[in-house]
Amino acid sequence: MIKFDEQKQIDSVNGALALRKEIEKIVDKIYDEGFDGIYWIGIGGTYASSLQAEVYMRGKTKLPVFVENAAQFITTGNLRFTEKSVMIISSVTGSTKEMIQAVAKAREIGARVFGFIDKAKTELAKMCNYCISYPVNEQLKFFMTANRFMYRNHEFPEYDLYNQEMEAHLAQALVDVEKAADDFGKEFAKKHCEDSIHYFVGAGVQWGSTYSYAMCYWEEQHWLRTKSITAEEFFHGMLEIVDKNTAVTVFLGEDEQRPLAERVAAFLPKICGNYTLIDAKDYAQYLQGISTKFRGSISHLITHAVTQRIDAHMEIINRHPVDIRRYYRQLDY
Amino acid sequence: MIKFDEQKQIDSVNGALALRKEIEKIVDKIYDEGFDGIYWIGIGGTYASSLQAEVYMRGKTKLPVFVENAAQFITTGNLRFTEKSVMIISSVTGSTKEMIQAVAKAREIGARVFGFIDKAKTELAKMCNYCISYPVNEQLKFFMTANRFMYRNHEFPEYDLYNQEMEAHLAQALVDVEKAADDFGKEFAKKHCEDSIHYFVGAGVQWGSTYSYAMCYWEEQHWLRTKSITAEEFFHGMLEIVDKNTAVTVFLGEDEQRPLAERVAAFLPKICGNYTLIDAKDYAQYLQGISTKFRGSISHLITHAVTQRIDAHMEIINRHPVDIRRYYRQLDY
Repeated sequence: MIKFDEQKQIDSVNGALALRKEIEKIVDKIYDEGFDGIYWIGIGGTYASSLQAEVYMRGKTKLPVFVENAAQFITTGNLRFTEKSVMIISSVTGSTKEMIQAVAKAREIGARVFGFIDKAKTELAKMCNYCISYPVNEQLKFFMTANRFMYRNHEFPEYDLYNQEMEAHLAQALVDVEKAADDFGKEFAKKHCEDSIHYFVGAGVQWGSTYSYAMCYWEEQHWLRTKSITAEEFFHGMLEIVDKNTAVTVFLGEDEQRPLAERVAAFLPKICGNYTLIDAKDYAQYLQGISTKFRGSISHLITHAVTQRIDAHMEIINRHPVDIRRYYRQLDY
Repeated sequence: MIKFDEQKQIDSVNGALALRKEIEKIVDKIYDEGFDGIYWIGIGGTYASSLQAEVYMRGKTKLPVFVENAAQFITTGNLRFTEKSVMIISSVTGSTKEMIQAVAKAREIGARVFGFIDKAKTELAKMCNYCISYPVNEQLKFFMTANRFMYRNHEFPEYDLYNQEMEAHLAQALVDVEKAADDFGKEFAKKHCEDSIHYFVGAGVQWGSTYSYAMCYWEEQHWLRTKSITAEEFFHGMLEIVDKNTAVTVFLGEDEQRPLAERVAAFLPKICGNYTLIDAKDYAQYLQGISTKFRGSISHLITHAVTQRIDAHMEIINRHPVDIRRYYRQLDY
């Protein structure tokens, strides 16, 4: 399999899961001190992950949890963000301009900032009150943080069981899904490598990853055009431009918004002959040891494992190395 | 001028502005009773307007103001939405399925629902605790509501002056902008009537109208493909697929997120030969009598007056009546 190092990926996920004690210490300190709001703040891909963390918590917690875009926080601001607030961020480079400004503003207000900054010696890392530096696995880090907050707020009684299952099985499950999805990924990449536009639909926790897959993978890395839309909004405008040849992919997760994505999946066959469903549930057989009720919290990791295979083949088929950028950080803007 | 009835449009806007006393009575009652959250909830176009109301207030008020999509409210829910919460909605038809379910859920929780339901005898109208029925002008109604809340919270000392100016000048200003924009609208429609995809970019209060213009006008009414993106996110992925021929339109408002849109406007000429800026500020000469500091709150109405002219011509040029729907409410889904 191309672009696949099983052991490296297993180690990467297990290494992220092993951050739990460190995350718990920080969350416990913040929880014990108290706060008037938890703000997941990001831009681009990290904004997408922030959307996921917020919607994951929204229906499960009484805690005041919010999501914001860093650039909006810098300009519009938020009068309810105070010295008692907590900002949670993630950054691979540690140098994203908008994030540096947003963190500076939060610190000036007197808020606490908890950052997952992959590179420990960067400006952003130094600006955080609490910082954990470990590569990639952003969504896992965010959800572990979210879980601890809910556990401390007596809203996650199965916290220990959840962690046991994830720590025992998740890493292997994700590589098993990748292996199972390789043929599909290759066929999908072959079929869609020259799409003039590809539509991606998702709901719930799956929405952040849908948005990010369209924008941070296809647009930014493959230079392929996309539009992403939430499943619920698909029926309020976008559906009109779908015809038999329109390329549409629906991501289905197993969280409480699954019915919204299922509605799109059920409707598409009536009007479209070029749609694909990428359903986390289809890979349930690889998730042995993980309780069904917990699967909604990792659906986006399952579908990401699937899209990894699309990306690996797309890069080869299109002869377009995914590391090159046309404009991003190449020009001043 | 086609599709333009000056007096009718003036009367429509002035009629909406004349709802103020009625809106004030309802908001005052809600404010005096107290609340733990104001939730702007919508779907499709009304979700877009809800986004606008929330971002308009976010930087100006300490009040707990939130925005949600109705379908997410139905499925994921929100544990912080309680019997002390207030839901504010709008609906032209009064029969949108998701809205009916969302309001039913809110009422079941015991929350108050304040609706602008254009048709007074519909199911949705009957379900509201407070209902105002007056056609269209959704954003105006929302912003009048927002303004009253902020006024009551001692955050809008210029409330009276603001209303005087709007009531004296806004309706005429909007038709004057339409007249001034007609030639532009025609040229734009001619140039872009066969675009394979058109990108729309906006920020701040302008974002909701950008999203809605792309989806509720071009996709739903013209059956033309679009992607809308916030100005800040443009730089985190989407920029890579822009080349000299890509059709991109940037909406610029005069609120505090203007710099984000200006950044895109400044960058585009370097990489794109097919972009358009629709800038509310360019029509300032028609806004005599409205203070500069208040213009940010109506920029989206100005740019809407401009896009009205695009739509009027697009309909003729493409021989595509904007009232027909291919699937929406034509099929079961």
